[in-house]
Amino acid sequence: MSSSFAPLAPPKRLLFGPGPSLVAPRVYEAMGKPVVGHLDPFFFQVNEEIRAGLQAAYGTANAFTMAISGTGSAGMEAAISNFVEPGTKFVVFANGFFCDRMSEMGRRQGATVIRYEAPWGQSFDEAAAAEFIRKEQPQAVAFVHGETSTGVATSGEAICAAAHAAGALTIADCVTSLGTMPINLDATGIDVAYSCTQKGLSCPPGLSPISCSPLAMERLKARTSVNHSWYLDLKLLAEYYEGAHRYHHTAPISMFYALREGLALVLEEGVEARYARHKANHEKLVAGLESLGMEMLVQPGIRMWALHTPKVPAGVNDLDVRKKLMERHGIEIQGGFGPLAGQVFRIGLMGEGSTASNVDMLLGALREAMA
Amino acid sequence: MSSSFAPLAPPKRLLFGPGPSLVAPRVYEAMGKPVVGHLDPFFFQVNEEIRAGLQAAYGTANAFTMAISGTGSAGMEAAISNFVEPGTKFVVFANGFFCDRMSEMGRRQGATVIRYEAPWGQSFDEAAAAEFIRKEQPQAVAFVHGETSTGVATSGEAICAAAHAAGALTIADCVTSLGTMPINLDATGIDVAYSCTQKGLSCPPGLSPISCSPLAMERLKARTSVNHSWYLDLKLLAEYYEGAHRYHHTAPISMFYALREGLALVLEEGVEARYARHKANHEKLVAGLESLGMEMLVQPGIRMWALHTPKVPAGVNDLDVRKKLMERHGIEIQGGFGPLAGQVFRIGLMGEGSTASNVDMLLGALREAMA
Repeated sequence: MSSSFAPLAPPKRLLFGPGPSLVAPRVYEAMGKPVVGHLDPFFFQVNEEIRAGLQAAYGTANAFTMAISGTGSAGMEAAISNFVEPGTKFVVFANGFFCDRMSEMGRRQGATVIRYEAPWGQSFDEAAAAEFIRKEQPQAVAFVHGETSTGVATSGEAICAAAHAAGALTIADCVTSLGTMPINLDATGIDVAYSCTQKGLSCPPGLSPISCSPLAMERLKARTSVNHSWYLDLKLLAEYYEGAHRYHHTAPISMFYALREGLALVLEEGVEARYARHKANHEKLVAGLESLGMEMLVQPGIRMWALHTPKVPAGVNDLDVRKKLMERHGIEIQGGFGPLAGQVFRIGLMGEGSTASNVDMLLGALREAMA
Repeated sequence: MSSSFAPLAPPKRLLFGPGPSLVAPRVYEAMGKPVVGHLDPFFFQVNEEIRAGLQAAYGTANAFTMAISGTGSAGMEAAISNFVEPGTKFVVFANGFFCDRMSEMGRRQGATVIRYEAPWGQSFDEAAAAEFIRKEQPQAVAFVHGETSTGVATSGEAICAAAHAAGALTIADCVTSLGTMPINLDATGIDVAYSCTQKGLSCPPGLSPISCSPLAMERLKARTSVNHSWYLDLKLLAEYYEGAHRYHHTAPISMFYALREGLALVLEEGVEARYARHKANHEKLVAGLESLGMEMLVQPGIRMWALHTPKVPAGVNDLDVRKKLMERHGIEIQGGFGPLAGQVFRIGLMGEGSTASNVDMLLGALREAMA
């Protein structure tokens, strides 16, 4: 049998949705570099650089800071499967799609999942959230630092303080916030954080940066129930990436090169300058959207800087606008889904994509498409 | 804070160990192409091509043939976690390291794991294997089609026939055999097969090609117990990759491009020509190793064509030889481990790397290093 495919010729999309975002040229270049073995000293050197870069972006001194060999959802499953055991009382602060996913993963681990809900597009009253934790006395508490489905940022200090007072471990989904706004794991009190590569870090999807506090590592060490996942077992991953470098799986080397370059860009810019850039372009986009007569779903103060959710104006068809953007300019933005289906656009300004000229370009294209 | 890394400059390794193997230039090129969204029609078109390429390489008409967004070990965990449930009687044919890993994953799922063992470097007596299955009447049976730790190929017809007679589902690890020798899933009777990208397909590590028979899909559909893994839940993955394209995770687009190109190379060469090439270079390498006075661990007839395990000759130090190969030529081969530590070399001729001139080069370098 012999056959063939046409040459691979992906269309050039301008990725301004909730992710994947535009990949930095230097990251593409890194993936063309020669692969080495998964136990090669060079690979572990790259991994040390990744740790340093992630520590800066996460704002943490956690020694256990590394990349899971799967996408952001694999990172979520690593966090839940390692720290939420059968019978764990697991409180999930639920205000969007990804909190629902965390709840589902918790149930699949056999945990008792207790949800504290807020409407999509809102965050939580700090005093009420703390009181809820005090009353429930859970062993683990999760929230989403940046909700990709709604654009809401939840910084988490009050939740983490109350969780720690109750003796609970804290887990935060930082998939859309890493590299775009301060997370400050240590100061905030987040014990386990995971993210992705294809949003604020300007890489293709494929890895999930994770970081675990000393308290989390203690809990992990003390765990006696079996972890159903071998692939995501952090005890085994620690033995591979740390001191002994004991073979576990064959790490996706090219993706590690990509992440290393994405983080090099973060370090070269400096995290504070990077956050300031995202904040400035966020404010510029919001002002522009409002000048187009659009209202933001999320109140000021809890808006993410990387993902914007203007409401679709009355009389405007969400699908129609998105189709025009794609057909006329190759621009990808997304609509809302779940309770927000047809009601909001989701517009991302992440990593390399967050520039003033991109904001101008997007506003122009949007104005034209809604006309 | 501002800081920086040195330019990324991986050493050029000649990868002739058990994997990762040398990556085809065209595959590197593919990873530099523009990323599209994980719900973009172009992505699903690439995915259809991947399905066609994998069907050819696996020798199957299975509609459910696709790539898991993790490495080969994630594919193993997908196979086990979806088809081996709490209480499943799970027979594992164990003759090397990766069978042990399957057993461990089975135990983590709460299965009753029953091992039928053969020494490392050997395969199984077909009649005895069949009789064992007849006696045990398991619900699932697993074996390793190409054992990366020993170089043994187990084609599996007898095991699969006996398993099906007992009503059991069959699972095969094809990590090192895919793309290098015939597997013929349908004719062999393998219900669930998984592999990797970084061996016979000449891609970097990062995805796990998996294929499930109609019988496997029926079992999956009928399953009532919860799958602990959400990330690897094939029911959810089917909804993402098939008809409805319901969002599950953000697939690692660049790795899908890479796999598509690796499979384009398979189709352009033709699978039969590809197997003939691997076989010819395998025979040439074995003849050369024997002319150097080395004895093969594995008997003729059950040798893989992609991975060779000559015994380390008396008086030769395994580590010393490997160090010389690396220092003098940048050649990576591996040694044995577990019961074979220090006793064999593991030399791979996989995908792009399986050429007559590479065999000559390897034999020359090895002769010199053992002198």
